[in-house]
Amino acid sequence: MVTLRNRESRPHVVIVGGGFGGLYAAHALRNAPVWVTVIDRTNHSVFFPLLYQVATGGLSADEIAAPIRSLLRRQHNAEVLMTEVTGVDTAERQVQTAAGPVPYDYLVLATGVRYTYFGHPEWQRHAPSLKSVADASAIRRRTLAAFERAELADDPAEVDALLTFVLVGGGPTGVEMAGALAELARTGLADEFRHIDPRRARIILVESGPRLLATFPERLGRAAQRTLERMGVEVRTDARITDVSAEGVQVEDVTVTSPAPARSAIASRNVIWTAGVVATPVSAWLGAEADGLGRVRVGPDLAVPGHPEIFVVGDVASVEQDGRQLPGVAQVALQEGTYVGKLIRHKVLGRPVPAAFRYRDPGNMATVGRAFAVADFGRVTTSGFLTWLLWLLIHVYYLSGLRNRLQVLMQWTWAYFTYERNVRVLSPEPGGAGQRAPAPVAHEH
Amino acid sequence: MVTLRNRESRPHVVIVGGGFGGLYAAHALRNAPVWVTVIDRTNHSVFFPLLYQVATGGLSADEIAAPIRSLLRRQHNAEVLMTEVTGVDTAERQVQTAAGPVPYDYLVLATGVRYTYFGHPEWQRHAPSLKSVADASAIRRRTLAAFERAELADDPAEVDALLTFVLVGGGPTGVEMAGALAELARTGLADEFRHIDPRRARIILVESGPRLLATFPERLGRAAQRTLERMGVEVRTDARITDVSAEGVQVEDVTVTSPAPARSAIASRNVIWTAGVVATPVSAWLGAEADGLGRVRVGPDLAVPGHPEIFVVGDVASVEQDGRQLPGVAQVALQEGTYVGKLIRHKVLGRPVPAAFRYRDPGNMATVGRAFAVADFGRVTTSGFLTWLLWLLIHVYYLSGLRNRLQVLMQWTWAYFTYERNVRVLSPEPGGAGQRAPAPVAHEH
Repeated sequence: MVTLRNRESRPHVVIVGGGFGGLYAAHALRNAPVWVTVIDRTNHSVFFPLLYQVATGGLSADEIAAPIRSLLRRQHNAEVLMTEVTGVDTAERQVQTAAGPVPYDYLVLATGVRYTYFGHPEWQRHAPSLKSVADASAIRRRTLAAFERAELADDPAEVDALLTFVLVGGGPTGVEMAGALAELARTGLADEFRHIDPRRARIILVESGPRLLATFPERLGRAAQRTLERMGVEVRTDARITDVSAEGVQVEDVTVTSPAPARSAIASRNVIWTAGVVATPVSAWLGAEADGLGRVRVGPDLAVPGHPEIFVVGDVASVEQDGRQLPGVAQVALQEGTYVGKLIRHKVLGRPVPAAFRYRDPGNMATVGRAFAVADFGRVTTSGFLTWLLWLLIHVYYLSGLRNRLQVLMQWTWAYFTYERNVRVLSPEPGGAGQRAPAPVAHEH
Repeated sequence: MVTLRNRESRPHVVIVGGGFGGLYAAHALRNAPVWVTVIDRTNHSVFFPLLYQVATGGLSADEIAAPIRSLLRRQHNAEVLMTEVTGVDTAERQVQTAAGPVPYDYLVLATGVRYTYFGHPEWQRHAPSLKSVADASAIRRRTLAAFERAELADDPAEVDALLTFVLVGGGPTGVEMAGALAELARTGLADEFRHIDPRRARIILVESGPRLLATFPERLGRAAQRTLERMGVEVRTDARITDVSAEGVQVEDVTVTSPAPARSAIASRNVIWTAGVVATPVSAWLGAEADGLGRVRVGPDLAVPGHPEIFVVGDVASVEQDGRQLPGVAQVALQEGTYVGKLIRHKVLGRPVPAAFRYRDPGNMATVGRAFAVADFGRVTTSGFLTWLLWLLIHVYYLSGLRNRLQVLMQWTWAYFTYERNVRVLSPEPGGAGQRAPAPVAHEH
């Protein structure tokens, strides 16, 4: 087969992770005399900045995810394997996968981060996080089911708990989710229920630090908070989660320590976790040094010290620049991926390698609901409706594939004028048809 | 609450099933002095004729399903309950549901059909059927996963079994699925794999009768078969499935009986069931007489004999007209639903009731792939590309909600010109995030 001939005669670059970092590395190798294998446990690359829209019914999962195979279809020196990576044998230069070992000459690890629960993995059951299309679909299912169950419930306390949403973590994802949930409850679902008023839903954003959007300038964090509060979101800063259960959460006010910690309980059936990321276990695979969040400390060329053939890019890499840690955002990942792809190409061609990686910050944005965004372009910071329009354009532009781009734009235009949220399919059992008992009530056709 | 006041002072119409029959009944009651409760086990109404497109990655589930609440949002005398109906207490006039009993003055049962496996429920595990959005998503997942697994497999026999698709049942759903799968394999996925050629996939349509599309005129069944064969689909008529297992299916040629039945095995990891529907257990709920397929025999006004307050509409009703059983198609269901809604309105208003239900047949259509359809309008039958265009327009028109209509049209136009199928998100575990172990390979953002 072509693939095997290529593999034997050309250096083999294995890229683990089909997100921004991995895909941009593969793309930068498109004209290099190498064979590229991209390995991912899913078949798609997800546009993470819009994942919260899937979780709140604004967009369909298919609109923010593209098959990795499609994206690399025309890159004839690349293949895609959908399988799970379990480790790396650095001595034998093999990636260990569920489908068997995959040998490499160069290895690019771009496996990203996952959420941690501050040492409480048992909280995850009650507080799903938002890191994949499957996560977003699960949160959407739970959110819509909560309104349905509230419509049927008799006990007022149960109705209140079903209509209370707690978002843990005041970063961009938490802020964006809070705004989208407020819109869903206040306008998207309004007038559709007869026993409850969805507008009554409480949306509580809990942040352990003193303000929202800690990675943005203070002015923008305050502006986001004011906008959220105007939308009816309760923002609780300086508030730490001390327990999560089926009943709801326990919150502690971190500014009060004497005479005793000030704790309060929030009854909620809908806790969503957007706080505390840690790296996937790449450092353990490599036996490499990691920082406090598990990210691999790499050299200025993003290679692992002692392994010039292994590179780490994106959120899973710990990179300092001008004394500051680079943030875990899409722009960092794609610039790092591009750099590493070019570096490998130069090495293979025997050319001098490019100078050390340097991140060029294009700015940082977050959105609050349908008509407000904040942006930090370094010397310029801005917020408001025009910033939101800019955010919209930039995000639609970055969406992979023209089809998605047109559709997202159309869907948002539509949503903006109608306040409808129709992406709301909810099935009782998400499992496959094969596991289902025959249903007494089915749809006719 | 308003709802309770309404309920107490007005006759209460309970409609079970939010498909075409149930929704059109509710709609016909919009100006009647009644309170309407629609009960469904899902939150959405699905446009069944396009479900096969979801199963083959042509459309997103969100595009062919609309929340029942949205559809009835402006009907202020109607409410929607998402719960499972388990029976009917005709003496007490109560519908039994998982959320408790719901009393009724008038009851409309529109719960549709489900697939039967000819007395072999154990086949369902290996041969999912296509009756709900959840089914379609499961089939899509299995189909895409089969190609992914084939790309990784070493054993040629395993690759062949993974790339063999068997469709059981040569009705409209089987024919449409076969055409869509052929397109997916021949064009949609072409050039995306490096170890297998998706074009090599075998698609086998098995029908126990002598020809496809038995409910259509013979000429159209033959035309559909020719078109499918031109697309590379193997059509096996007069072929009965005698076993389904993880290995594949056993097929018996029904035209050969001596000296012994002619049986052959097809190794396949992808068996899809579109044959043999039976009614949901409405007749058992009511203790009413049923026909051979479990459908309730109703009177000329679609009421259950002995129960003038209970009506059965859609696929679950057995209605004869001019000596012929009305078919299980959307048009029958919606016309029956409209008739029953009007009938109840007249009864409540004390007006003379409309004459017996009479079905007006607007014709019958099925599509084969991207550019061919067959249509039977009684005196006129037609097939070909223009018929396909007509099919497209009619189906897009019937899609509930303008948003969906525009999007489907756009997506199909796009698909037609690019042969892309991008609605292909596949996650390793379809379950909720809460049940998932931390993943070693995650997406970065």
